[in-house]
Amino acid sequence: MKKIITISREFGSGGRSIGKRVADKLGYKYYDKELIEKVAEKSGLSKKYVAEAGEYAPSKSRFSYAFLGRNVNGLSVEDYLWSIQRGIILDIGKEEHCVIVGRCADHILGDREDCLSVFIHADPKIRAKRIVERYGETDTDPFKRLKDKDRRRSLNYKYYTDRQWGACDNYDIALNSGTLGLERCVEIVVGLAR
Amino acid sequence: MKKIITISREFGSGGRSIGKRVADKLGYKYYDKELIEKVAEKSGLSKKYVAEAGEYAPSKSRFSYAFLGRNVNGLSVEDYLWSIQRGIILDIGKEEHCVIVGRCADHILGDREDCLSVFIHADPKIRAKRIVERYGETDTDPFKRLKDKDRRRSLNYKYYTDRQWGACDNYDIALNSGTLGLERCVEIVVGLAR
Repeated sequence: MKKIITISREFGSGGRSIGKRVADKLGYKYYDKELIEKVAEKSGLSKKYVAEAGEYAPSKSRFSYAFLGRNVNGLSVEDYLWSIQRGIILDIGKEEHCVIVGRCADHILGDREDCLSVFIHADPKIRAKRIVERYGETDTDPFKRLKDKDRRRSLNYKYYTDRQWGACDNYDIALNSGTLGLERCVEIVVGLAR
Repeated sequence: MKKIITISREFGSGGRSIGKRVADKLGYKYYDKELIEKVAEKSGLSKKYVAEAGEYAPSKSRFSYAFLGRNVNGLSVEDYLWSIQRGIILDIGKEEHCVIVGRCADHILGDREDCLSVFIHADPKIRAKRIVERYGETDTDPFKRLKDKDRRRSLNYKYYTDRQWGACDNYDIALNSGTLGLERCVEIVVGLAR
């Protein structure tokens, strides 16, 4: 029986939808925007900033982390946000049966035997179609949007966990939602949690 | 319904045992040593050489592929072996319902919709224990044996497929046999094949 399920996902892979359905089926609390709200409240940072910087590396440069200013109690704002976010994820993990999407929760809670860590991915063609359907067109090519989001998530993950994002070794199970279908992924994760 | 199941695996993760049990449960033909025998027969190379060079990069240097001699019809022996092995895997895929372990079969057959590609991994501590139980002690530290085997498999895979071995994106499903248990992995793969 798994008390906590962490869902890491490639942008556009349907990982959030899968997480929500898993939580509903198991009667678990679902943390996605709800986590952002908690972190924003505790840190005093805006929800928009938390949503962005709590999961993505700064966009300009791959070395951006090295050049961040130090502003809050001698920490960069990003490191301050990380420490608040980490603390809240640990607290949630102590208290509730839950599904947590993103935010390195797989790393923060992954050592616990009652935690199941899941990675959801799919072919870029399928993901590009999905993000256009879901979030609409923008001036930027959808493949470029995918690549940029994945790269920045990967850098954030590497910086704070020292692990390679999307490497099988990090997760209990990794599923291709494009070839297996969302419903099959939900079934498998629910089956493993029970 | 999946006609072909490819199993890629970290050394000592129990991937071969899982593959064998999946094949038995589905009534599929199992290709592991059987594949090596077919390749040895067709190529005229020894079984021992095929078992080793058909899956592992040369041990001495990470650049060894670049310095291989060219001996058979203008190909290096490794490239000759690869072409024979690839052809046999494609033929098997046409003819039979089967489980194929290793040998880049996930890449060679992965575009087919009736192929399920699986990656099995586990924590090095669990794998080290397993290889000592299964293959006995040697003069070399089991962690070093794991690292060397994985590194050479990874280089072979990268050279012939241009993909990163052990990256979630390559596979339909990746399973941690250490945390999930071998039997659970068998169940999930059989469930997805049916």
